[in-house]
Amino acid sequence: MDFEEVTLKRKDIYKGTIFDVVVDDVQLPNNLGTSKRELVLHRGAVSILAVTPENKLVIVKQYRKAIEGVSFEIPAGKLEMGENGSELEAAKRELEEETGYSGDLELIYEFYTAIGFCNEKIKLYLATQLKKVENPRPQDDDEVLEIYELSYQECLDLIETGEICDAKTIIAIQYFGQQYGGDLG
Amino acid sequence: MDFEEVTLKRKDIYKGTIFDVVVDDVQLPNNLGTSKRELVLHRGAVSILAVTPENKLVIVKQYRKAIEGVSFEIPAGKLEMGENGSELEAAKRELEEETGYSGDLELIYEFYTAIGFCNEKIKLYLATQLKKVENPRPQDDDEVLEIYELSYQECLDLIETGEICDAKTIIAIQYFGQQYGGDLG
Repeated sequence: MDFEEVTLKRKDIYKGTIFDVVVDDVQLPNNLGTSKRELVLHRGAVSILAVTPENKLVIVKQYRKAIEGVSFEIPAGKLEMGENGSELEAAKRELEEETGYSGDLELIYEFYTAIGFCNEKIKLYLATQLKKVENPRPQDDDEVLEIYELSYQECLDLIETGEICDAKTIIAIQYFGQQYGGDLG
Repeated sequence: MDFEEVTLKRKDIYKGTIFDVVVDDVQLPNNLGTSKRELVLHRGAVSILAVTPENKLVIVKQYRKAIEGVSFEIPAGKLEMGENGSELEAAKRELEEETGYSGDLELIYEFYTAIGFCNEKIKLYLATQLKKVENPRPQDDDEVLEIYELSYQECLDLIETGEICDAKTIIAIQYFGQQYGGDLG
């Protein structure tokens, strides 16, 4: 069976700061005719499962306009222009800016967040050996963040209440449970 | 600390079939001034971790234009207009359309896929007691799907190779490993 959809034409809809939007006319495989694909193009992002020496997970509380509410998440940030290929540096920067920590980072997953219509790919790092940075780089000036250090069980409770409700954070907490039983040891 | 961002003005950028795009001018809390929020508005989706009596996971292979490649995922589908509040029915429909199975469904997670800029929420169901439907509802006519029934270990291997690379599927597989050790029993 053939799967590929060939782009016949791409129409630019929106060029934004965070993402662009295009609509592609595609030729479907297997003589199924043509269709349209609405797509959000995004540069990608990094996120960090940061575990303190006390086995606590570093969790950021912040307002998310997309859901008109507050959310508890692992630290994360968009790649800046030209940062592809240096995601590890971006992850270290985000960790420091959002939490004031530096640490040893190791890639554990990469995944697309909304593969049906968006090419945002998140690289997820595990950060251990956390140390407080003396003069950490400042947070972005349009971000209001509150930092928590929570036990694995407290994170599970926040999933249960819906206060943790984003995919990357659930993936990270599940991973920590599965690989480490919630305890780095 | 105050977190809320108050909408001062919303500008409609794009009204699509799958999503809309708006840009909000927001008043930041704590006298931080104003900022812009680019947002993708989406009706939401359902997805199904379907486990056969033989403990195999039902996995759909399909082309994803957003990543210009083929992806292995759990069955999923967008909510249709007016379907909010009947996500369970939508999940049953998608399961039948994509895989030809019916089953007993139970909500296990709901999460936002790309919370930084998009309000797409996915409800994830566990489907067990699967039975082949005699004359299943047909697939959407612009979808080319191939259905696999894979062991938990085969799914882990596909994550390792990157052929499983989408967030909802990783969440589902990790859940199956964590709750059931990869075996419904």
